[in-house]
Amino acid sequence: MISTSLQSLALRYQDQTLLILDQQLLPQTEHWIKVQDPKHMISIIKDLKVRGAPLIGVSAALSLADWVVKTRPTAEEFKATALALRESRPTAVNLMNAMDRLLPLYDGKNKDVVWTEALAIFQEDVRLCEQMAECAFPLINDGDSVLTHCNTGGLATAGRGTAFGVFSYAWEKGKKIHVYADETRPLLQGGRLTAWELARREIPHTLICDNMAGMLMASGKIKSVFVGTDRIAMNGDMANKIGTYSVAVLCQYHNIPFYVVGPRTTVDPLCASGKDIPIEERAPEEVRGAMGSFGRVQWAEATTPVFNPAFDMTPVELITGIIVDGQYFSQSRLKAGDLKKLF
Amino acid sequence: MISTSLQSLALRYQDQTLLILDQQLLPQTEHWIKVQDPKHMISIIKDLKVRGAPLIGVSAALSLADWVVKTRPTAEEFKATALALRESRPTAVNLMNAMDRLLPLYDGKNKDVVWTEALAIFQEDVRLCEQMAECAFPLINDGDSVLTHCNTGGLATAGRGTAFGVFSYAWEKGKKIHVYADETRPLLQGGRLTAWELARREIPHTLICDNMAGMLMASGKIKSVFVGTDRIAMNGDMANKIGTYSVAVLCQYHNIPFYVVGPRTTVDPLCASGKDIPIEERAPEEVRGAMGSFGRVQWAEATTPVFNPAFDMTPVELITGIIVDGQYFSQSRLKAGDLKKLF
Repeated sequence: MISTSLQSLALRYQDQTLLILDQQLLPQTEHWIKVQDPKHMISIIKDLKVRGAPLIGVSAALSLADWVVKTRPTAEEFKATALALRESRPTAVNLMNAMDRLLPLYDGKNKDVVWTEALAIFQEDVRLCEQMAECAFPLINDGDSVLTHCNTGGLATAGRGTAFGVFSYAWEKGKKIHVYADETRPLLQGGRLTAWELARREIPHTLICDNMAGMLMASGKIKSVFVGTDRIAMNGDMANKIGTYSVAVLCQYHNIPFYVVGPRTTVDPLCASGKDIPIEERAPEEVRGAMGSFGRVQWAEATTPVFNPAFDMTPVELITGIIVDGQYFSQSRLKAGDLKKLF
Repeated sequence: MISTSLQSLALRYQDQTLLILDQQLLPQTEHWIKVQDPKHMISIIKDLKVRGAPLIGVSAALSLADWVVKTRPTAEEFKATALALRESRPTAVNLMNAMDRLLPLYDGKNKDVVWTEALAIFQEDVRLCEQMAECAFPLINDGDSVLTHCNTGGLATAGRGTAFGVFSYAWEKGKKIHVYADETRPLLQGGRLTAWELARREIPHTLICDNMAGMLMASGKIKSVFVGTDRIAMNGDMANKIGTYSVAVLCQYHNIPFYVVGPRTTVDPLCASGKDIPIEERAPEEVRGAMGSFGRVQWAEATTPVFNPAFDMTPVELITGIIVDGQYFSQSRLKAGDLKKLF
């Protein structure tokens, strides 16, 4: 009998049931999926109904632990199931880390240990987000208008998010901010998810096309920019959603601070510089039109040649500072190699 | 009996029939509309089936002259029809100029004078495009990859276009160029029209989302940028499609030449600087989704607040040079006030 109750923006545990917000249907429909068992969770992960590396890891851990407590599987069944979950999204580091933490814990009897560890994974993610938001708090002033790119909030983590968490924390603490959200072509995470999340948290906001950020900065409206990150190299270079680099250049020209927010797991000790970060290219169809639960349209010809990088690399020269967990690394600290001290 | 035959990318006159390419259906369908009479032309203009200020003026002039030759209206009928055409798109300067040239020419008899003047309007537009392209020719090197924003080609003029014309001329003269086209959110003129036009002219090209231009520049792929313009102020500042300013800032950071191409009619002697150019804001629905003959989707909530400027202003400091008709104005000439010599 589990009496635990959990609630995040996109994940709930209540009445002994794990619920996942179907992000494929946002913002048109807010549908909560009742997770039946880990096999069901695997299909939810594969169908991209849950997204964001931290949130995927937390969701998988809770579905595994919930199933262990309810069905008391054999140690062999447990191991096979955990490994299947681990492989459901090959590039998700957090998912692998979460499963690797749970795998050695169960011998067929000690179900509560698994549950306790899954809860710890959830709570650690929440706490990390709080740490990042608190650390960045002094960087935002009351009355500031800020800009972000992509989605980095409660739809990507179990907590308040990374860059987005900075905004929601500052807002809750009484700073009257206004958030401009880039729509983030081609997958529209800003237009679909960040705008929805800002509305849910009742934070004043405005959606813009990516190419409007420069004009807004020129008009003096943007006081600072915060973005998340997919990977941070040891010299402070970092990769993030395509378009982040252009925003960083625009910040430099307009003398606007450009901050990066991410958990320590995104710092990669094997990458000396941004040149070591591979950039994935995605399907050309994404640029020839737009597609999602909102429908599917194609405005360019099916034969139009396309360049569609999923990420770009922003060099440390353009970064004012990076918030890693509870620590602030200024550009000069990054250049001095201080990220090494994390390891 | 008119033996004239005209052919441009989006306008034809053949077998005594004026044909207009329906741009609303591009690139999915290439449908040529047989223009019945000026009344029909007015509906074509109002339905945005023909677009681009120069092309609208030329199309209206030819439809009026064709009707005069075929029906020999009274002087009163002619005047009323010309004025109705003149008012069909209130902000189109070229349309007004074209009608003002034809209006005093017809007294009920001299139909051939009207036809000759309409032909002259067509040919002048073609010649202006050639002048701009020839003037810019030395600025493009064999093997260059170049970037443009929005659509400025044969779908906007009777000739090869402004910025686009520079590319097609260089290509025809044997320079092996590669054109990157920004999709140009929110109305997607690049994704819908420029990509189609590049394919029709068999110029090697690649479509990108607006937020990918910076990454391309950082990789060293872009040698120069050419854009059109909606209005040029006397100090060299200029307004163009939203997103142009961001491209100009990115060029400055990457030390890439940024050129503007436009006919003399876009130079406004009443604007001392870019601050005098009003920036129109358009409907928020355009940013909440995408719409056109390709369909209509909405990915943001209907209540999401939006900022949707149609244009932005690029200051002369970011402009390497402006090509006006056959003349090149470098930044230093622009700053010295040399545009005044055009008047």
